[in-house]
Amino acid sequence: MAEILSFPDADRMEEGGLLARSLRDGVLRLVLNNPPTNVLSMALLEVLMVALETAEADPEVRVVVIASTGNVFSAGHDLKELTAHRADEDQGTGFFERTFRLCADLMLKIAHLPKPVIAEVDGLATAAGCQLVASCDLAICTDTATFCTPGVNIGLFCSTPMVAVSRAAHRKQAMEMLLTGETIDASTAKDFGLVNRIVPKQYLAQVVSKYAGVIASKSPLTLKIGKEAFYRQLELPVEAAYDYTARVMVENMLTQDAQEGIGAFLGKRTPEWKGE
Amino acid sequence: MAEILSFPDADRMEEGGLLARSLRDGVLRLVLNNPPTNVLSMALLEVLMVALETAEADPEVRVVVIASTGNVFSAGHDLKELTAHRADEDQGTGFFERTFRLCADLMLKIAHLPKPVIAEVDGLATAAGCQLVASCDLAICTDTATFCTPGVNIGLFCSTPMVAVSRAAHRKQAMEMLLTGETIDASTAKDFGLVNRIVPKQYLAQVVSKYAGVIASKSPLTLKIGKEAFYRQLELPVEAAYDYTARVMVENMLTQDAQEGIGAFLGKRTPEWKGE
Amino acid sequence: MAEILSFPDADRMEEGGLLARSLRDGVLRLVLNNPPTNVLSMALLEVLMVALETAEADPEVRVVVIASTGNVFSAGHDLKELTAHRADEDQGTGFFERTFRLCADLMLKIAHLPKPVIAEVDGLATAAGCQLVASCDLAICTDTATFCTPGVNIGLFCSTPMVAVSRAAHRKQAMEMLLTGETIDASTAKDFGLVNRIVPKQYLAQVVSKYAGVIASKSPLTLKIGKEAFYRQLELPVEAAYDYTARVMVENMLTQDAQEGIGAFLGKRTPEWKGE
Repeated sequence: MAEILSFPDADRMEEGGLLARSLRDGVLRLVLNNPPTNVLSMALLEVLMVALETAEADPEVRVVVIASTGNVFSAGHDLKELTAHRADEDQGTGFFERTFRLCADLMLKIAHLPKPVIAEVDGLATAAGCQLVASCDLAICTDTATFCTPGVNIGLFCSTPMVAVSRAAHRKQAMEMLLTGETIDASTAKDFGLVNRIVPKQYLAQVVSKYAGVIASKSPLTLKIGKEAFYRQLELPVEAAYDYTARVMVENMLTQDAQEGIGAFLGKRTPEWKGE
Repeated sequence: MAEILSFPDADRMEEGGLLARSLRDGVLRLVLNNPPTNVLSMALLEVLMVALETAEADPEVRVVVIASTGNVFSAGHDLKELTAHRADEDQGTGFFERTFRLCADLMLKIAHLPKPVIAEVDGLATAAGCQLVASCDLAICTDTATFCTPGVNIGLFCSTPMVAVSRAAHRKQAMEMLLTGETIDASTAKDFGLVNRIVPKQYLAQVVSKYAGVIASKSPLTLKIGKEAFYRQLELPVEAAYDYTARVMVENMLTQDAQEGIGAFLGKRTPEWKGE
Repeated sequence: MAEILSFPDADRMEEGGLLARSLRDGVLRLVLNNPPTNVLSMALLEVLMVALETAEADPEVRVVVIASTGNVFSAGHDLKELTAHRADEDQGTGFFERTFRLCADLMLKIAHLPKPVIAEVDGLATAAGCQLVASCDLAICTDTATFCTPGVNIGLFCSTPMVAVSRAAHRKQAMEMLLTGETIDASTAKDFGLVNRIVPKQYLAQVVSKYAGVIASKSPLTLKIGKEAFYRQLELPVEAAYDYTARVMVENMLTQDAQEGIGAFLGKRTPEWKGE
């Protein structure tokens, strides 16, 4: 990550750049801004990664929202950029490797980030754009949002997106998206398990903000403990998962925030989190 | 388990105690009776474990139902009891370890019990109470039953409940429950995969009884073979799962009950199970 | 597989035999034809396996459809045949082993086949018949199709079918089918994740044909890369799944079909697949 962390073009991360950022009440809003279809170019992948690294280190950030400008949430990888690198001496191999590695690292970073990440989806989310939605902890979309993994249409199967999609949805439903490449509507995406909630377009930001606010009001330490435990235990056999989480519960009980939270609950008062 | 099996306070397990038990037509009904919210205190966890150990050994028991008295199915761990042990010399560490270990062992016991276990849920099932529902083989609830994993509200993330909930539901839906701590209704719980069926309150016991009766009419040996195979193969890669279950099928074919059952089916008569 | 590949009774695979075959526009249609209930006898398992092996090797075959004649999609194993072998010197052990092994190999073959397989389901699919549906990449059924894993009723738990069913559906829903043995309707099967789409009976073949046609129009190489990656990454921890699929994406990018497909997309023309 050293290479990525040292990415220097910081001003691309400001308003008007590839990724707009704003922080309010503990909620960091990252808005994809790469018109017209918010493709995940190498540059956008890099600024997203830097933004998440920064969010991890910043105690002011409690929850991250990933949204977008325009009518397309994200059309996935930048096919023009990928194609241009076919002219490289190595036919693009090196660039393709860096691109798919960084994209995978970004998706894993979302899971490993000790703060919840919510996708706020309006418009079409395709390929790596759909993967981004599937990789967030939660996803809320408009009733006109649509989703697909259409790589099969262009001879490039959505093999990295499938990692996220097939872990969010049942396998036959993931396979349908992957083999047909066809677009599903918001309601189908909710049935499949790709999104948590559908809201009318005019209320999207408001509802996401409410969810983010609810989560931001919790103890950051508790969220960090729980989110880490969630993804780790999912990969374990059930006995090992209980060995691990039973230890996590004991450690969590011994934190000041659990003492405060339980005390506040029993005393019918509002807890004050110390993050310890 | 030796310590638990020798738990001496047997009368707590009788009518009027923490756990009411009744056996009828092969169906053992265990009713949580720890008013007002059926918290899973150390004592209730212990009697539940003893009751399951006893059920395992008792050939009269073919199916187990876990139900509850009052308006709350179970509010999870006993926060007052846990808090009281903060005064221990070790700040409660030892008690917390014993509690979360026993609770995990109880959930694993349900899966390992060679007899099907059905949750009969009326009212609110929260935290370890929700975990208990998710851990049963089947769950049937009233249309007014509700579910949540609200540990995040009190600084104690529901890290052990998540093991059961995230294995019953899709991960985004599990995450929504865990991160927001909010309560979901019966219909949402069914969509998520946490319950099998929703019935009007006045028919709950009757419908559960019908399900339990259907299952109790099967060969106990077949149920034992199948339930054990189910949870074991879930943890295996698919090729290994087939190696294992193909062997199970052969062994099952060689039992007297399979010979009787298949013979009865082909002869259009009712089978008589020997349990062999 | 050598033994099976050399299976000599080739004419059973022709029209009027146990398995009718027809190939049109890249879609191979395999129709179970073992009246009255299309049981998966040893002979039918063998011809199905040979048909899939042949389909794998035949470049004309791009998509496989498994359908059936009559009112029952498939009633699973041939109980009369299994029972007859109880008279063998070994009480049938050897025959049971060969049957369940071949059946498991057939289901794994569907997953390993480098071409998508679609189940076209009309009528009842029970036990290994239900497993066959669950094992196909996609499944489309009529609104009167029904599904069950009723082994528990005859003393022979559906332990091999559970491998496929429990990987397609949530575990409580799979358990309900397995423990009660009761039949679910098409709508419930879709909710459970066992089928992708329900259509009126008179449109079944037409809709399946449309799905198959859409998939057959993709690059066979891309489908092969993607299908193999799908089932392999499902078995891996998420980090390993990304390591693996990121490499797959690079290799896929370097194929001629990806170059053609992306070029065609950017140039707004129809791609011409070379299969390279």
